[in-house]
Amino acid sequence: MIPVAILGGSGYTAVELIKIFLRHPSVEIRLITSTKDRTPIEELHPSLLGRLRLDCEPFVPDRFVELGIQCAFGCLPHGVSIACVKPLIEKGIRVVDLSADYRLRNPDEYQKWYEHPHADLDNLKIAVYGLPEIYGDQIPSTHLIANPGCYPQTAILGLAPLLAKGLIHPKDIIVNSLSGVSGAGRTPKLNTLYPECNESISAYNIGKHRHTPEIEQVLSDVAGQPVEVIFSPHLAPMDRGIFSTIYATPLTNDHTEKGLLELYRNFYAKAPFVRVRDNLPNTKDVTYTNFLDLTIRIVKGKIVVLVVEDNLIRGASGVAVQNFNRMFGLPETMGLL
Amino acid sequence: MIPVAILGGSGYTAVELIKIFLRHPSVEIRLITSTKDRTPIEELHPSLLGRLRLDCEPFVPDRFVELGIQCAFGCLPHGVSIACVKPLIEKGIRVVDLSADYRLRNPDEYQKWYEHPHADLDNLKIAVYGLPEIYGDQIPSTHLIANPGCYPQTAILGLAPLLAKGLIHPKDIIVNSLSGVSGAGRTPKLNTLYPECNESISAYNIGKHRHTPEIEQVLSDVAGQPVEVIFSPHLAPMDRGIFSTIYATPLTNDHTEKGLLELYRNFYAKAPFVRVRDNLPNTKDVTYTNFLDLTIRIVKGKIVVLVVEDNLIRGASGVAVQNFNRMFGLPETMGLL
Amino acid sequence: MIPVAILGGSGYTAVELIKIFLRHPSVEIRLITSTKDRTPIEELHPSLLGRLRLDCEPFVPDRFVELGIQCAFGCLPHGVSIACVKPLIEKGIRVVDLSADYRLRNPDEYQKWYEHPHADLDNLKIAVYGLPEIYGDQIPSTHLIANPGCYPQTAILGLAPLLAKGLIHPKDIIVNSLSGVSGAGRTPKLNTLYPECNESISAYNIGKHRHTPEIEQVLSDVAGQPVEVIFSPHLAPMDRGIFSTIYATPLTNDHTEKGLLELYRNFYAKAPFVRVRDNLPNTKDVTYTNFLDLTIRIVKGKIVVLVVEDNLIRGASGVAVQNFNRMFGLPETMGLL
Amino acid sequence: MIPVAILGGSGYTAVELIKIFLRHPSVEIRLITSTKDRTPIEELHPSLLGRLRLDCEPFVPDRFVELGIQCAFGCLPHGVSIACVKPLIEKGIRVVDLSADYRLRNPDEYQKWYEHPHADLDNLKIAVYGLPEIYGDQIPSTHLIANPGCYPQTAILGLAPLLAKGLIHPKDIIVNSLSGVSGAGRTPKLNTLYPECNESISAYNIGKHRHTPEIEQVLSDVAGQPVEVIFSPHLAPMDRGIFSTIYATPLTNDHTEKGLLELYRNFYAKAPFVRVRDNLPNTKDVTYTNFLDLTIRIVKGKIVVLVVEDNLIRGASGVAVQNFNRMFGLPETMGLL
Repeated sequence: MIPVAILGGSGYTAVELIKIFLRHPSVEIRLITSTKDRTPIEELHPSLLGRLRLDCEPFVPDRFVELGIQCAFGCLPHGVSIACVKPLIEKGIRVVDLSADYRLRNPDEYQKWYEHPHADLDNLKIAVYGLPEIYGDQIPSTHLIANPGCYPQTAILGLAPLLAKGLIHPKDIIVNSLSGVSGAGRTPKLNTLYPECNESISAYNIGKHRHTPEIEQVLSDVAGQPVEVIFSPHLAPMDRGIFSTIYATPLTNDHTEKGLLELYRNFYAKAPFVRVRDNLPNTKDVTYTNFLDLTIRIVKGKIVVLVVEDNLIRGASGVAVQNFNRMFGLPETMGLL
Repeated sequence: MIPVAILGGSGYTAVELIKIFLRHPSVEIRLITSTKDRTPIEELHPSLLGRLRLDCEPFVPDRFVELGIQCAFGCLPHGVSIACVKPLIEKGIRVVDLSADYRLRNPDEYQKWYEHPHADLDNLKIAVYGLPEIYGDQIPSTHLIANPGCYPQTAILGLAPLLAKGLIHPKDIIVNSLSGVSGAGRTPKLNTLYPECNESISAYNIGKHRHTPEIEQVLSDVAGQPVEVIFSPHLAPMDRGIFSTIYATPLTNDHTEKGLLELYRNFYAKAPFVRVRDNLPNTKDVTYTNFLDLTIRIVKGKIVVLVVEDNLIRGASGVAVQNFNRMFGLPETMGLL
Repeated sequence: MIPVAILGGSGYTAVELIKIFLRHPSVEIRLITSTKDRTPIEELHPSLLGRLRLDCEPFVPDRFVELGIQCAFGCLPHGVSIACVKPLIEKGIRVVDLSADYRLRNPDEYQKWYEHPHADLDNLKIAVYGLPEIYGDQIPSTHLIANPGCYPQTAILGLAPLLAKGLIHPKDIIVNSLSGVSGAGRTPKLNTLYPECNESISAYNIGKHRHTPEIEQVLSDVAGQPVEVIFSPHLAPMDRGIFSTIYATPLTNDHTEKGLLELYRNFYAKAPFVRVRDNLPNTKDVTYTNFLDLTIRIVKGKIVVLVVEDNLIRGASGVAVQNFNRMFGLPETMGLL
Repeated sequence: MIPVAILGGSGYTAVELIKIFLRHPSVEIRLITSTKDRTPIEELHPSLLGRLRLDCEPFVPDRFVELGIQCAFGCLPHGVSIACVKPLIEKGIRVVDLSADYRLRNPDEYQKWYEHPHADLDNLKIAVYGLPEIYGDQIPSTHLIANPGCYPQTAILGLAPLLAKGLIHPKDIIVNSLSGVSGAGRTPKLNTLYPECNESISAYNIGKHRHTPEIEQVLSDVAGQPVEVIFSPHLAPMDRGIFSTIYATPLTNDHTEKGLLELYRNFYAKAPFVRVRDNLPNTKDVTYTNFLDLTIRIVKGKIVVLVVEDNLIRGASGVAVQNFNRMFGLPETMGLL
């Protein structure tokens, strides 16, 4: 049993991680930190009643060493996360950070999008972007995973095969996405109050969402040249699920849907959680799982890629465990099927 | 056109009132107060864009006189409401108060349930409980309406015919109710955050809800003897609608469903907004209307009354306009069909 | 009072029409047809209990004359609608047809998309596409309105100002749309069963939806040249509302959001139901109304138009009444505010 | 690995069983029957894509023997189920029948409530009602489990401790229940069409629901005397979850909430899936799990028990696996945490 800790136990990604670990045969949760010190975790998340008896603790790095923690999962807001990750890495504890703090390699980009300077440039250099289907080889040896954003995974995995093969124009890409409301976090706000967002679809941060540079950074790696996307996020009246409809312009006109599906199936042949479908996807077929489903259509010369995932599992806590499994030499799917 | 004002423009009952008045042929909204001074009402409620151009104002009693306001509608929290109602009544302006401040006739009861002394005993004496189907005769002449609570209307109108005729045991009554989430107001809280209450039913304040004494006060009036109810409110994953399932014990065993339906139809013969149905009701058949639908079943000797309403219209702003229509000699249904 | 009839009373657009007419000061519903002969309309739609006492009747053209019907509203499926529209037009009764039967001017296009030949070529020639903001001048004198589709209105009104001014590439347009489930009609099907579509977003008919030629026909009129769109419809877990996110490529790079908003405000200056907003729209701000809201953003050189409407009111029954008001010389907003 | 079969693979309880078994370390699904012969199961349930490659087969008893099936799970409608159960039992294959066919011991009661005679009286005699917390001792040796209904489990487990101790009046019990829509099955019907039941609560079969005799039979066993309940089911706008609010009349007035909670905790001390809570329950804290949560309140002398469960897991497929685990000597919680 590998002893792990969770940093910031009160939110949705934390409780999702806990539920995955309660089924994971090789993990023991020994520590959960929270500013709500001494609160039993089953009080913060009543669904855990009787399933995990742990009181939240304040963040004290030595405590991690004392408990023999081998891996910590950061479920903290960006900006705050760095303050915990840094001392843990120093003490030799590996970290999967679910915040955005270590995702953008360029600290200037971080400052531009997150509006404060990056406070841990050393670790920023060693962090690996934890998308196993793209950077899988770098994951086993790293000490710090920058766990990917929820939206970016749909955009990146939806476009990677096309860009890796150089089949599309790298600067004429539209990613139109919808997310369930849990993606907005567990802090009460007017726009996520039930009667405000129930029975409604809204757009937000059109062209300005912080996941944009993350998508572009990874896709540029994949393409070997600068990639730009127009990213339009929307909020949909459901708990969880992301649906991304992606429009790309092929460089040639000789593609068929069948051929592209074949290309995707080959590209993801070794990816147990990416399912290339023939039929159009529903978010409901992937929610509460770590699967990301996608399919392809060609419409009037454009390539349309339709991608779905559960924003809390595949989009956050599930892929975090997938990364953890790779880091610790466990089967990639352990605890996730 | 009767000039009216709304006290406290930022919540759900306020916007519902505004929408009703925009269709009401005899009303002009001249003033909306809010602590969000100077904010255009269409900013607080984007659905009003282009439909009502008014900036919110602070509460200044003289301003009401200056604008010739004839009736003010209080959409403020209990406790806060009194501070506005009192000076307006003093200036001769009639008030329909949607808060709970003037509903309980006995100030000791008010203090017990609302945990502070009542600060306007004079007007408490003159206030009329604004349930037109019960106190209709007192409404035209009053200057102060205590607009009824949302849940109480379903309980009271569901039980009044039985208690008026003395057919049931007055202290063996169960009111099991569910409300849509808009009933919890527009202030962001954890329990009304979308991912907390979506896809979930929860119970709250079982046996302790502040609507209990209100129900009992009015039903005791109707029965001419003390009535007690067990009231169990629940939250349901929908915007609006209340469903109350009421269990009463008849004093004799000779009732038929047909006979009871006839009794109810007679009792509500002149009530344009109470619909006695043969079939079981759905909240959806009354939401976005001022109708309250009900039917009766007899099960193993118990009388089961099933009642539905829209909590924001019939349960608050609609019945407020119904009261207003009666106060100003207008047809009861004006603006409400 | 203008006597009207509704053809096909059992579906969602019919009940919506009825509710609008119950508030419309110049209309009397005298006849509702249905294959469910003799069923009281309040049985088909329990929300109408006590509000409209009419039994459905079979379709008999002479009955319309006998009752003095001046306008009939077709709420029938495409293909079926023609069989009713034709005899009514022959008898001099004006028709607003909510089906798709008279929308495509070219009968070959109709046959291609609807998979059977058009059976009423004469009336197809006289039909006016009932989008008041585009063909408003032709509406007063016509006897036959082809009421527009729900999705097309968002696409057309979202793009018309840009195409009318020749500002965008007419064949590089993407319309990504989501609709509430009522758009799929009232016939029970697996994909609209509650547990199938609740908590889920799905795509359907990507690049193949029958509203595509309708959008292209009208926008080509507006542009004065052939327009092509990629249209991607999705189903969202809500009752009603359409959200369309439209991507267009400007011919020049000198546009500002402010300038485009100004262009739209001028274009729709006389359109009481089109609201050009500064902020991003929500479907909830327009559901249960006849308003269509939109705004504009410029992202990386693309123009993004975000449009919302209620699919049953603005998208069907509301715009039908708007057309009717124009046909009969009534104020355009009568019964619709 | 124990080879199992599923009878009737197209519905919600079947797919839920499959998902549980895909995580169960001691089970292999070898056969799924369906009238949709030869359809891959991943076509009937797209969420299973890549997770289980089996084509549905017609029901042929010899096939079960040939494949070495040790236990079959019946996910068929009542009436239909008997025709499969009977031949399997004859061939020595154990069955967990999720239909209602073997739940009522008295065939006259069956005929009265299900409106046709019972066609397998022999096996009716040997069937064990599969509620492990009540009949746990009889489960290991039985060949035929009548898996309990979804609603009955909340009523039975909510009342059993009180009736076992003789603390309440056995004929003055009200069970007011709400269920998510998946409880109504996967066959498209008007009342479970999304726009009909979304945003709505409805009552159905008040006092007439077929789960009433099932509740009464088991509670009479527990009480050692005849028990009667008034059972009022309602439909709530959510996928899954049952909330039952139960009202019972104690025989004495000396109970405290604390004392009753203690009684319940003792009664369920060995039941791993019954959680007695202090706070009021939410369905969301148990959905997607096999837990049944409950708490107690005393209100004006009545005992109020509030019980929640997931109707598809605890209410059907989860408890079926719990029964299976006991039948085959496996740990009760295997595959269910």
